Amino acid sequence: MQNNLRINGDRLSWRLAQLATKGAIEGGGVARLALSDADRQGRDLVVGWMKDLGLAVSIDGIGNVVGVRAGQEDGPLVMAGSHIDTVATGGRYDGNLGVMAGLEVIATLNEAGIVTKRPLAVAFFTNEEGSRFQPDMLGSLVYVGDLPLDDALATPAIDGARLGDDLTRIGYAGPAPVGRPKVHAYVELHVEQGPVLEAEGFTIGAVEGVQGISWTEFTVTGQSNHAGTTPMRLRHDAGYVAAEIATFVRRLAREMGGNQVATVGALTLSPNLVNVVADRAVMTVDLRNTDEAHLQDAEAKLFAFVAETAKAEGVLVHQRTLARFVPVDFSPALVARVEAIAKDFDLPVRRLPSGAGHDAQMLARVCPACMIFVPSVKGISHNVQEYTAPDDLTAGANVLLRLLTELAE
Amino acid sequence: MQNNLRINGDRLSWRLAQLATKGAIEGGGVARLALSDADRQGRDLVVGWMKDLGLAVSIDGIGNVVGVRAGQEDGPLVMAGSHIDTVATGGRYDGNLGVMAGLEVIATLNEAGIVTKRPLAVAFFTNEEGSRFQPDMLGSLVYVGDLPLDDALATPAIDGARLGDDLTRIGYAGPAPVGRPKVHAYVELHVEQGPVLEAEGFTIGAVEGVQGISWTEFTVTGQSNHAGTTPMRLRHDAGYVAAEIATFVRRLAREMGGNQVATVGALTLSPNLVNVVADRAVMTVDLRNTDEAHLQDAEAKLFAFVAETAKAEGVLVHQRTLARFVPVDFSPALVARVEAIAKDFDLPVRRLPSGAGHDAQMLARVCPACMIFVPSVKGISHNVQEYTAPDDLTAGANVLLRLLTELAE
Repeated sequence: MQNNLRINGDRLSWRLAQLATKGAIEGGGVARLALSDADRQGRDLVVGWMKDLGLAVSIDGIGNVVGVRAGQEDGPLVMAGSHIDTVATGGRYDGNLGVMAGLEVIATLNEAGIVTKRPLAVAFFTNEEGSRFQPDMLGSLVYVGDLPLDDALATPAIDGARLGDDLTRIGYAGPAPVGRPKVHAYVELHVEQGPVLEAEGFTIGAVEGVQGISWTEFTVTGQSNHAGTTPMRLRHDAGYVAAEIATFVRRLAREMGGNQVATVGALTLSPNLVNVVADRAVMTVDLRNTDEAHLQDAEAKLFAFVAETAKAEGVLVHQRTLARFVPVDFSPALVARVEAIAKDFDLPVRRLPSGAGHDAQMLARVCPACMIFVPSVKGISHNVQEYTAPDDLTAGANVLLRLLTELAE
Repeated sequence: MQNNLRINGDRLSWRLAQLATKGAIEGGGVARLALSDADRQGRDLVVGWMKDLGLAVSIDGIGNVVGVRAGQEDGPLVMAGSHIDTVATGGRYDGNLGVMAGLEVIATLNEAGIVTKRPLAVAFFTNEEGSRFQPDMLGSLVYVGDLPLDDALATPAIDGARLGDDLTRIGYAGPAPVGRPKVHAYVELHVEQGPVLEAEGFTIGAVEGVQGISWTEFTVTGQSNHAGTTPMRLRHDAGYVAAEIATFVRRLAREMGGNQVATVGALTLSPNLVNVVADRAVMTVDLRNTDEAHLQDAEAKLFAFVAETAKAEGVLVHQRTLARFVPVDFSPALVARVEAIAKDFDLPVRRLPSGAGHDAQMLARVCPACMIFVPSVKGISHNVQEYTAPDDLTAGANVLLRLLTELAE
């Protein structure tokens, strides 16, 4: 393999810009909700590019698209992939970068006349975002065999449509069997969607895994009272208990340290009036950790604090799990290779976890998988202002190129 | 004066029930918003009773109604009063009790053939609740000369009407000059609207004054971020700062003790999503104390804490005063008489402040004034479930009878 091989950054940016014209919205963003007409336009464009690059395109029953470049030998694929669906007010990098960079790797190898030993592939998976259909990462979940195809096709959209009907409507209910071809290794280049790399001056993130997620909703029921006439000792203040939980959550993250994050993003009081003690508070707590034991520890501490605080104030608390995912570890060997390749390119690199979910975490169930992150300016994502500098896109794509070609040897 | 004189509790309850038929709503409550048609019906009923009892009824330019019972001498009135307007989902006791008990005192004296030295009066003041017109206690504020009549008449209703027009429409823009007749002393019997008397087993509250009120709205502006990808150290979480303020407010009340109360009743986060760090929190803080120096101390501590917490988290806070009233002290001599009379009747009595505003605090600006509280079951008020037991109504009215007759000697 030629270690001086480099991708064409201008062509990569051009493809991202072309794809961003499909479902373009004001402010430079993109609305390409899964299986919408805009998604079809985006898919048609990318499939066209795959064919132009000589890839053999297969589409499976859930609309996952895989473009294969034959190797000197048959066998499982070395795959680059991600998704091209977006949230309703998304940017042009999230997901798209991993797919466009995959195409750019293919184009670069084509130009250099290199044929790898193993076959290479570029894939994009259906409905990664989960904005129109729940759950998110649906296409890759079906691909790895953990969601039956029929169940996936029956999924209702938030606008009432049935996933299978929409897939047929846009022409992407394909004939290929799901879960095929088999994958030898999976690499996903993605924007960080967080502020760490930019804030600390790193160009490349070697993603060690995806944080486990624990979402709990607490409904606190106290007693509504007059804020002037009710002495403090006679109160059963749902709002106060919610505030105690929210400050505990911050303290918990601080005391646990490491990569534990904890957030109270939603909190609603009733009746929500200046002079009435709240009788009801509904709030969410979002806990994430890369280590399942630590995540369970955080949950246990939170639940104990909530029970104790509720008892002290004389309020009732009902708790409900909104989501729970165990952490995913990427292949240590692949993570180490991302780090080494970046260093070889003199690119500042750090290891970090992914705080968001990605198709790579599904693929990790069936093959060695890893992710490469590049900086998101100000950590902004799922927003039309999402931005990654062209040099960083190029850097990430070159790491992808090197890793894919290594894996395909 | 005959110390064995007692009011007729059945007749008092009957009048309260009759008045409650005007603007009756489901659940046994009353909707008699100021200057509505229901308010007119209630006013007509009460004015009719006043005339039946031989009172000389005068109505002033803001619709305050005063029924006077002549004494052996002319001069300033010994007045019982309150209001008969209600909130949109009110009970039958709030305000109405003070007026109906005043009528009951008159009826009792009439039956006993007693003519007091000073003239007695029963009054009800316009728009005490402030539900349709701001400010609350508007009629008594005009009565004591602290709001010009023309300004009061120009007040817009929440439904767009002009106060003066509605007053004319319901026939209560009277010819009597505001602030007349002069008042020698003012006594207001009222339900506590709080839980203290019931919780502690007292029948009578000797109200020492009305708490000062400080309402502040804080708008916290931080930065919206992904709850999974943003490390704790890089956050500027408006929701967290709001929660810290809310828990501080509870701590503040606990540490200051006395009758300091402090409430965060309203708190709204944006975007209010489980997995997004809030970039905006709007919250209110309600502080009350009977001592102005203590109230100022509480404000100073709160504002310092807010500034310090905002700085530590890197968020901006804008603060706005929503309301600020200094505490009102009732006449110590009258408060002592309420206490002594209750004891003389063997009624369990305690001194306490009023956490809510009342017409008595306006009258206190121009004459000795005081209030008598009777228990509110579970402290519930401004609610169709508002309830005070008949024996407690009777007890309060008997204290009122004794105090009025003493003052009229």
